[in-house]
Parts: sequence; structure tokens; C-alpha cells
Amino acid sequence: MSATPRVTVWNEYRHEKRNPRVQAIYPEGMHTVIASALQGAGFPVRTATLDEPEHGLSGEVLADTDVLIWWGHLAHGEVADEVVERVYRRVLDGMGLVALHSAHFSKIFKRLMGTGCDLKWREGDDHERLWVVAPGHPIAEGLGETIELAGEEMYGEFFDVPPPETLVFLSWFSGGEVFRSGCCYTRGSGKVFYFRPGHETYPTYHHPDIQRVITNAVRWAAPTLGAPRAFGNRPPLEPTRETA
Amino acid sequence: MSATPRVTVWNEYRHEKRNPRVQAIYPEGMHTVIASALQGAGFPVRTATLDEPEHGLSGEVLADTDVLIWWGHLAHGEVADEVVERVYRRVLDGMGLVALHSAHFSKIFKRLMGTGCDLKWREGDDHERLWVVAPGHPIAEGLGETIELAGEEMYGEFFDVPPPETLVFLSWFSGGEVFRSGCCYTRGSGKVFYFRPGHETYPTYHHPDIQRVITNAVRWAAPTLGAPRAFGNRPPLEPTRETA
Amino acid sequence: MSATPRVTVWNEYRHEKRNPRVQAIYPEGMHTVIASALQGAGFPVRTATLDEPEHGLSGEVLADTDVLIWWGHLAHGEVADEVVERVYRRVLDGMGLVALHSAHFSKIFKRLMGTGCDLKWREGDDHERLWVVAPGHPIAEGLGETIELAGEEMYGEFFDVPPPETLVFLSWFSGGEVFRSGCCYTRGSGKVFYFRPGHETYPTYHHPDIQRVITNAVRWAAPTLGAPRAFGNRPPLEPTRETA
Amino acid sequence: MSATPRVTVWNEYRHEKRNPRVQAIYPEGMHTVIASALQGAGFPVRTATLDEPEHGLSGEVLADTDVLIWWGHLAHGEVADEVVERVYRRVLDGMGLVALHSAHFSKIFKRLMGTGCDLKWREGDDHERLWVVAPGHPIAEGLGETIELAGEEMYGEFFDVPPPETLVFLSWFSGGEVFRSGCCYTRGSGKVFYFRPGHETYPTYHHPDIQRVITNAVRWAAPTLGAPRAFGNRPPLEPTRETA
Repeated sequence: MSATPRVTVWNEYRHEKRNPRVQAIYPEGMHTVIASALQGAGFPVRTATLDEPEHGLSGEVLADTDVLIWWGHLAHGEVADEVVERVYRRVLDGMGLVALHSAHFSKIFKRLMGTGCDLKWREGDDHERLWVVAPGHPIAEGLGETIELAGEEMYGEFFDVPPPETLVFLSWFSGGEVFRSGCCYTRGSGKVFYFRPGHETYPTYHHPDIQRVITNAVRWAAPTLGAPRAFGNRPPLEPTRETA
Repeated sequence: MSATPRVTVWNEYRHEKRNPRVQAIYPEGMHTVIASALQGAGFPVRTATLDEPEHGLSGEVLADTDVLIWWGHLAHGEVADEVVERVYRRVLDGMGLVALHSAHFSKIFKRLMGTGCDLKWREGDDHERLWVVAPGHPIAEGLGETIELAGEEMYGEFFDVPPPETLVFLSWFSGGEVFRSGCCYTRGSGKVFYFRPGHETYPTYHHPDIQRVITNAVRWAAPTLGAPRAFGNRPPLEPTRETA
Repeated sequence: MSATPRVTVWNEYRHEKRNPRVQAIYPEGMHTVIASALQGAGFPVRTATLDEPEHGLSGEVLADTDVLIWWGHLAHGEVADEVVERVYRRVLDGMGLVALHSAHFSKIFKRLMGTGCDLKWREGDDHERLWVVAPGHPIAEGLGETIELAGEEMYGEFFDVPPPETLVFLSWFSGGEVFRSGCCYTRGSGKVFYFRPGHETYPTYHHPDIQRVITNAVRWAAPTLGAPRAFGNRPPLEPTRETA
Repeated sequence: MSATPRVTVWNEYRHEKRNPRVQAIYPEGMHTVIASALQGAGFPVRTATLDEPEHGLSGEVLADTDVLIWWGHLAHGEVADEVVERVYRRVLDGMGLVALHSAHFSKIFKRLMGTGCDLKWREGDDHERLWVVAPGHPIAEGLGETIELAGEEMYGEFFDVPPPETLVFLSWFSGGEVFRSGCCYTRGSGKVFYFRPGHETYPTYHHPDIQRVITNAVRWAAPTLGAPRAFGNRPPLEPTRETA
């Protein structure tokens, strides 16, 4: 895609309003911090949240969205099936989706994966170290060998997703676990990237490397003006042979 | 899995009762022909069909099934969501699924893929030639370089599935199309194999090579008594260092 | 990579000098036609050929090359092992490689694949139809569902390469074969794309869709300024736990 | 492959003769311990070592070998290129290869990978925990969620191999690193499995889980009597259309 991708950052936006610890870190919501980082990278960005009408994801908004970022946790069940279906169809038609942290359990991510997407977890102030295992991948551009997060929630294997088509990051946790933390998938004409970090009680989305990964992921997941996906009953295409 | 896998062959079983042309080829249903081939290979086999209670797929039947074969076409919408959910959970827990031909549009296959699973098609007596592109794969065991089907329905790309983890067969059609005809996937602890041939108006499931592929696929898809998939909140595992 | 990738088009450049039929199609060599197309797309391009000193691929040239295009056929054996080694190391360090047609048997491609890279072939004026099977992939950008080549040499499966990490094109040939025609690989920090069409006796590289694929492939294969590949003996990284 | 696979365990067999610490753990060599475990699993097993004529890998031995296990470290450079070439051709023709630990740097593994195969390392008595990330894979059969090794040499990312076709194990190291520890590849008709553990100064190959993984890997890597890999010039296959 040659044009600059238009981004919508979707956030459940509940923790920030209820939990003073989260509010201190993200006074205007995680989506605002992520949106600022993406605007700083030159993308046109809007935000949308659960409690807006249609969760802020009307057909018009999605039609104007090239890449959708998704953060949800407490209220996956409150996301309307109709909106999930709308996002799902847009992804198959080419819109990129970047699913962050607890979005592993969102309806839209589970729908696209075809698996349960469960995992192990611990809120225990683990040190998380993300190792780059695809050093030439565009999502790793500009990073060092690792990203260091002094405190994070642990997510551990087995992560019940299909094997990623490309694995970009592996996490090491001080408490003894590993996790496939950066996973690329293709669904229809769309690209999906799951990125693990971002528990609400840590300042993870303020971290420059994390912002860089999300920025890179937007570029990677942006739609390609590619070959159409065309289906249905077709007559034979038998070509004329040049010689006979 | 060391024990012999127990197979259930599921068939919609409608075409065979309504269409004399199909009845002539499969007087007792496609499932009976497939089941006979698998019994001949030494597997304990049962069959199940749409019009049985619970479509023949009670919890007890599924608990006793290591690999489920699925053929459906006209009546995907009549398969109860509750049964689809039951099959889905069994696959994640390790049961193999072999989806045949028009099962590409079955609820269970679409659920496991996370995509629309659409394709191009033509009932035009194309010649289909399946080329083996994974010659060392267990599903290709005992085959020659190609499988030749003198007449078949055409299925053409784009086939809207996730990129297969392993691609075993590619089909060439005389009318000008190609198709990824043998596609392997992992979902949870389960294995899924999609195999294209088998339109109801052709004697495809009587073909020895096709029977061999299905037999091989049962062996490949049989559950492994493997590592448990365990999830949820966990304390740290920090090991004692042996030396310091 | 934000900067515009610098391309070197390497051509064996023997057929064009010896065979009048080839000369009529490519009077100044295939490399010149490919280079013009890439210059038209805005890339700085140089060319290099077998009979130049060091085959035109000195260390300085390679250091200034972000993506190398390779066409060879008659004289794979004349390419000096030292130059092959130099190209190989540059690919692992991030330089993209686009291997065209009979380059499947080049020393550098076989070295990077780790397999024999053999295939079936026929000079028989087959019609070749390339189907896009990864519609959202950047290498398919701007294409329709197929690329039609009225006459081409046939390449048929089994193509003895590792399974491609991403399969972008499948070819259908009128004589009855299929081929994995657009194959993406990662090697070290570098990306490798194999693209099948381009027999010297056909005007394939004048075809706008073929030029578009090569242009797209250059963008896809361009190096990412990514995480370093660092190796060797390392002290422990044990982090300070935030809490205890 | 229905018949029981015949295994050859190849060992450099130098450390065991020179280093008393290694000798105490493997008095008759690592190959003997591994061979005993495989014999116990019912496979016909022979051993071969570097200092035998042709390193014990004559054409006759290889012709009688279905799966070759490889351990080497100090003396990769002493393995004759002619023997490497012989093993390479047998792998493409279907023989399985299980490369253990420091065999990542063996000539045969590097030849088959097409990359440098370098990594980070530390002899520091790390605790290694291998997590199963492919719970349904035959190589994980019979294991729990993890394999615990109280002391091992550390191997850390970036591991410079092509992305594995299937990733079975991920290692966590107490010193802060992760590693893709169980990697499956296809080369020609052959299967290759790399398995990380097994530094010579630890009793790793006496560990029942490690023996089980190697046993499972032999079954997985055993040749399939599959479709031939046939190459070269071919006439058209155009089929007679059944109808017109």
C-alpha cells in the first residue's frame, strides 16, 4: 500500500476509569498513548472505545480504517457479535489487525484464529525480556536484540493459537516461562499481528521499543492493493496454445 | 498414538437418496464406501449421518473417535451449532479431522480455519491431476507422482483458507485452474487435513489412490498422547540453580 | 528500510550474444530490460554480468546493493565459488535476493536452499497461467487474479526446494503440470524470492505484470535495519526482579 | 514407513576419551547410551564414530540406515566432505536426520539449512526448561508440559537457521535466554530434526524424557515410502477430456 495507512486504536477503556493505579499510568486511557505514538510516526489515527455507540466501530469508521489496534480484557463479552462480524469481514477484505496483550481472548481474535487462545498467566511483577527471533522482519526494524520490561504480567505456554506463520518475538519471564510474543498470521487478504506486552498496571505502552513495534506492525499489516479474492461458478479458461 | 485409531465417517447422506446418478455410484452412501476402505486398512470404523439423532455425533461417539471424516454439501446449515461446538472442542483436545471436498464450507471447518473458506468451482467434467508436492509426507505414502481423476468438479484458487502449515497436493484442472488440494493444519492438540476430491456425481471415493490418501490421513491425524494443554493462573517456577 | 533500495541486476548474458532468437527479444540483454523497469519504478539500479571481472560483484558493489536480482542458466558452473560465498554472506547479513527462472540451479540459490533444487521442464510453448494464492502479500500488489503468459518453458513439480515460508504464485501449464512459482524464504537477516517465469526465448521480462512482480519483490526483499545477529559466548543476563 | 526404522547413531567420540569429567558420565561414549535407549524402544541400531574408516558411514551403512543421529563438536572440520555429500544425498532421498546439540555447527546440518547456524552460548550451569509448544506433535508424545534439566550449557537466540517448519520445543534458561530447541525441517524426501540439549559434561542423554524425545524423533523422521522425486525433460501430459 503506497498511501499512509489510517489507524483506529480500539480500547475497552474500563480499567483506566476504575483502577487508580491504572489511571495514574494512563490518565486518558491506553488508546490515547498508543494513538499519540502512531500520530508521531505520521499516521492519521482515530480512537474508538467500548462504551461508544457501536463501540465506535461503525461501518463508516471501519471502511476508513486500514489497520485496527485492539486492546480488551474485562469486557470481551460485551462486544456485540454484529460488530465482531463487521470487523471480521473487513480483516478478510484486507484491513490489518494488531491484537495487544489480553486481546488474545477477544471475540475477534478467537474468531480469526479458530482456536481457544488460552494461556498461562501470573500477575507477579516478572521481568519480561523479548528476544527478536526474526531479525530481518519489518516488525523488528530499529530494535536491538531484546526489549526489556522490568515488570509485566506473565503469559506462558502453551498458547493455544495456530502455529504462527512468522514468529517475531519470544518472551523470557523471570519466573520460569516462555511465550511466543509476536505472532504473524494471514486471514483472507488481511494480516493479523498478536503482540503480548501491555498489562494495564504497567507503563508498557509508554516504552519507546513497544511503541516502535506497534508502529512497525501498522506498516506491516497495512492492506496491499492486491489481487481480488473472487469466488463462485466459473467457465473454463482454456487458453489457445501458441503452437500445436 | 500407538493404538489403532478409531474412525467415525460422517456423511450428510442426502444426495445419495435424491439423485439417481449419485445413487448409482454410491447406493449405500459415500460414507459406506469410505468406511469399507478404512476397515480394509484395519481401523475400527463407525459411520454417522445428518439425519440421525444428534447427527450421530453424541458426546459418547466423539469420545470414542480418534479421527472424524466429514463430507457435507447441501445441508451445512442443518448441522446443529451444539454439535459443531462439540466436534470443535474434541479437535482442540486432539481428535483428528479429515474434511473432504465440499466440507470446505461446513460449519466445523470454517470454525477451525477462521476464514470464509470460499473458492471457485465448475461442474464441467474437468480432468483433475493431483501432484504430490511433499513427497516425504506420510499422507503421500505409497502414491506415485500424481493421482489422475478423469472427471471431477473443478475447485479453483483463491481458496480462502489460512496458508496451510504443510501443502501435500496441488491440483491441475484441464479447464485452466489450480488448487491447493491437500492442506494440513494444527488446531490445539488436534490435526486437520483438508482433501479436495470427491464430488458426489463421480466415483472418486472408489479410486484406490483416493482411498489410500484418506487412509494415510487417518494415520497422520490420529491423536498423539502428548503434552497436556494446561492454562490459567500459575505461581513462578523458578528453579534452584545447581551451582552458583 | 526507509531509504530507497539500491538494486543490482545480475545476468549471465550469454544466450543473448549467441542465439539470434534471444537477441531479437533482448538485444542488450535481459538485465537491461529488467534494470529499465526497476529504474522506472524509482530504484537506483546497476547491472553486472558473468564475464566482467569478479562477475561484476566485487565486495564494493555488494556493499552498495540492497537487493540482488539473479538470472543464470548455461554457465552456473563458471561462477566463482569465492563470489558465491561473498553473495551468500551478504544475504545472511540482510541483502535481498530475487532468483529468476533458471537461477533455481545457480550455486547461490542451491547454497541458500540446502536442497538439490531440481524440477521437470519442457521447451514446448506451453501456456502458463500464474494464480495469486496470497492476495494480500506485497509481492502481489496491483495484480489481477492471474498473470497470463501465452508461451513459456514449462517447469513442473516436484520442485526440490524446502517448503516456501510463503507461497505467492502457483503456475498452471497447458501441458498438464503445476509449479510453485513464487516462493519466499528467510535466510539470516536476508529475504529470498524465487520467481519462475523468464525463459530466454520468450519476451517474458517485457510483460508489465512480470515487471511489476519483480518491482514488488525488490520492495519486499529490501533489508530491514533490524535487530543485530549477535553470536558467541555470553554472561548471564539475569535481571533484577522488581519485587521480591 | 511400516517397517521398523533402522537407526545409526553417529558420534564424534573425542570428548569421552579425553575429558575425565565426560568419561565419568559416558564411559563408552554418548552414542552407546543413545543407542541403548533406542534399542530398548525396539529399533535395530548401529553406531559409527569419527575415527572409524569413512567415519563409519560407508555407502552400505547409509543404504541400511533409515534415521541417522548426529553428535559432533570439536572436530566438525575433520569430517570428510565426501562423507558429508553422501549423507546429504541420502537425506534428500528420504533418510531422516536427528542433529543433537553442538551438531548445529556440523557440516551436514549447515549444508541442509543453507545458513550459518550460529548462536549464543555459555557453559554456566544454567537450569534449562524445555516447554512443549506443539502438544499434538508426535515428537512430544508421552511428555509432560516441560522437560527439566538441572544443569546444561546455555544456547541462546538468535539461532541462525531458517524458520522451522514446525517448532516443538522452546527452552528457557535461568540466565535470561530463550532458544528454539526442537525444530523440524523437510529437505527433499527427508526429514530433519534439530534437538538442542546434550552438552557432554552433563548426563543429559541419560534423562528419560530426552531419550523419549530422541525415540519419538526417530519415528517421526523415518522415511515414507512416498511419491518419487523425478526430474528432467518431460512431454506434455494433456489428458483426454471425458466430455466435450
